[in-house]
Amino acid sequence: MLPAPIAWTDRHDVRILDQTLLPAEERYLELSTVEEVAEAIRLLRVRGAPLIGIAAAMGASLAARGAGNGSAARREAVLAACDLLQATRPTAVNLAWALERVRERVRGVAGRPDTLHEALVAEATAIWDEDRAMCERIGRAGLPLVPDGATVLTHCNAGALATGGIGTALAPIYLAHREGRSVRVIADETRPLLQGSRLTAWELTRAGVPTTIIADNMAASRLRSGDVHCVIVGADRIARNGDVANKIGTYGVALAARAHGVPFYVAAPRSTFDPATPDGAAIPIEQRRPEEVRQVGPAAQLAEIWNPAFDVTPAELVTGYITDAGLLQREQLGNLASRPTPAA
Amino acid sequence: MLPAPIAWTDRHDVRILDQTLLPAEERYLELSTVEEVAEAIRLLRVRGAPLIGIAAAMGASLAARGAGNGSAARREAVLAACDLLQATRPTAVNLAWALERVRERVRGVAGRPDTLHEALVAEATAIWDEDRAMCERIGRAGLPLVPDGATVLTHCNAGALATGGIGTALAPIYLAHREGRSVRVIADETRPLLQGSRLTAWELTRAGVPTTIIADNMAASRLRSGDVHCVIVGADRIARNGDVANKIGTYGVALAARAHGVPFYVAAPRSTFDPATPDGAAIPIEQRRPEEVRQVGPAAQLAEIWNPAFDVTPAELVTGYITDAGLLQREQLGNLASRPTPAA
Repeated sequence: MLPAPIAWTDRHDVRILDQTLLPAEERYLELSTVEEVAEAIRLLRVRGAPLIGIAAAMGASLAARGAGNGSAARREAVLAACDLLQATRPTAVNLAWALERVRERVRGVAGRPDTLHEALVAEATAIWDEDRAMCERIGRAGLPLVPDGATVLTHCNAGALATGGIGTALAPIYLAHREGRSVRVIADETRPLLQGSRLTAWELTRAGVPTTIIADNMAASRLRSGDVHCVIVGADRIARNGDVANKIGTYGVALAARAHGVPFYVAAPRSTFDPATPDGAAIPIEQRRPEEVRQVGPAAQLAEIWNPAFDVTPAELVTGYITDAGLLQREQLGNLASRPTPAA
Repeated sequence: MLPAPIAWTDRHDVRILDQTLLPAEERYLELSTVEEVAEAIRLLRVRGAPLIGIAAAMGASLAARGAGNGSAARREAVLAACDLLQATRPTAVNLAWALERVRERVRGVAGRPDTLHEALVAEATAIWDEDRAMCERIGRAGLPLVPDGATVLTHCNAGALATGGIGTALAPIYLAHREGRSVRVIADETRPLLQGSRLTAWELTRAGVPTTIIADNMAASRLRSGDVHCVIVGADRIARNGDVANKIGTYGVALAARAHGVPFYVAAPRSTFDPATPDGAAIPIEQRRPEEVRQVGPAAQLAEIWNPAFDVTPAELVTGYITDAGLLQREQLGNLASRPTPAA
């Protein structure tokens, strides 16, 4: 049974599963203001590139509620909300992409002022529905890579908790499991915030997929051991040349996979591909607070901390891209340049 | 001011700094039985390949104390103590090496029964003194690799806390710092037990060496950033062909260093080189308890844990070996095959 990391309440507040409390506690929060949604994204209560796009679109709709629904002032409030939400996380391109869809919708309803809130709820719901469908298509595209008996190594969490559906990197695994194939996952724990041991291992074992947690620094040894069929990771942004920004540590896994001839796949929906970014060097890498590293173990007080949230894996280390448009090679990424248009 | 991780008390008990409590607390334990010393080694209260050799030799002497000093029964008790101590950690060869010196000494005093305890105290002290001198020589051998302005990346702790002196991997850094060179260290935190953020960063900053802690999975990105002059790590065992067993994670760092043309050095005293082990595949890798991984962050309960304590870095990834016999290339390791003989 997969968790539902996001939902509307009856009043169209935004209900999220607080992922910072997992796996110890499964607590849901009802967010009724844009500021609460922005804070939840910033603190990683809701996280995962596709999911924060959905959450931001839902959050922006909150600014359209109440008196003057659809007035010029209300439309301005929504656009300001988009700016606030977009500033929460700089690396994931899905966030900017989803908020651009919201902005277009705001412009589109200018002539029908009283429908703004309804229109934005519909737009956010469409983004969510499309993401769920994209996850399924990603799963289908990756399914041949996960044969019966396969062991897949993954980093961070690109599963149901990171999307509106069955995940990106984990989608082929869930489909293989659903079809009765025996599959296992090796989950990097993913320091500093342990998304692998807290989230990936939690959602996979809850769904009945046997999972082994390793510390990140064990991945190279495990890839050498010969029992890993392939690596599948998600992505926060994929540049035009195929370079992949993903959770810090992905690059080291890609190097180790290459050293041992283990295929390395990146799974992502179309919204993660950013034709406006030429290559990995142009992707902004979010630097996060030193306390994230310190809080897990007592580190020496006088030492500095370097805490980048993401790294860039060069396209030449990527065996293939598992997308909602199929399993693609680097040369085929140009086909994805046209993003899906907003739902009508 | 460097810490003293081991010492004799006035009564020739074994005083150790409990490294599991660092950096929060600097607590010393006085161990008066072999069992207490074995437990301290097993629980990593005292750790680091050279230091556990010293601690084991000191610990074995405790079995020679008391009534019947030097009797056949007492000699048997010391040999049994050696077996107990040797079983505590399978990977570090220094432990076996130091205990073999103790056993030889036991055999050597068979004709002079009343001097057993004094002889074993002298042997352990000699091992300690030799290690201190070896650390200094390692430091001299590595000093040219750490020029003014250098930044060195290291993994785990191969410093004063791991040896009887100024460390192995950190020895060149301490000597460079002592000479007034400006040097910086990037310390991998080293999951699961965080020896890097708890121990390496603590002893370096205490000595005035600026240190930056990174999560292990950030090493590849940092090595790509271009500011790291070289990597220096310690070793738990070096096989005849130059393959290096060291703390889990070392291998991934070596792969990333190679990918970016950053020199990768292994620093170790002669006692770490094991001519009886042909290559890395013959080195036993200690598997430790899953709880070590779980205790730092709340991991999913239903997931398994894989927790090897060490990995093997193939000799072809090692730029050079910083030893007490100088900076050596792989082809020169044969020169180290003759171990130092026990002190008379």
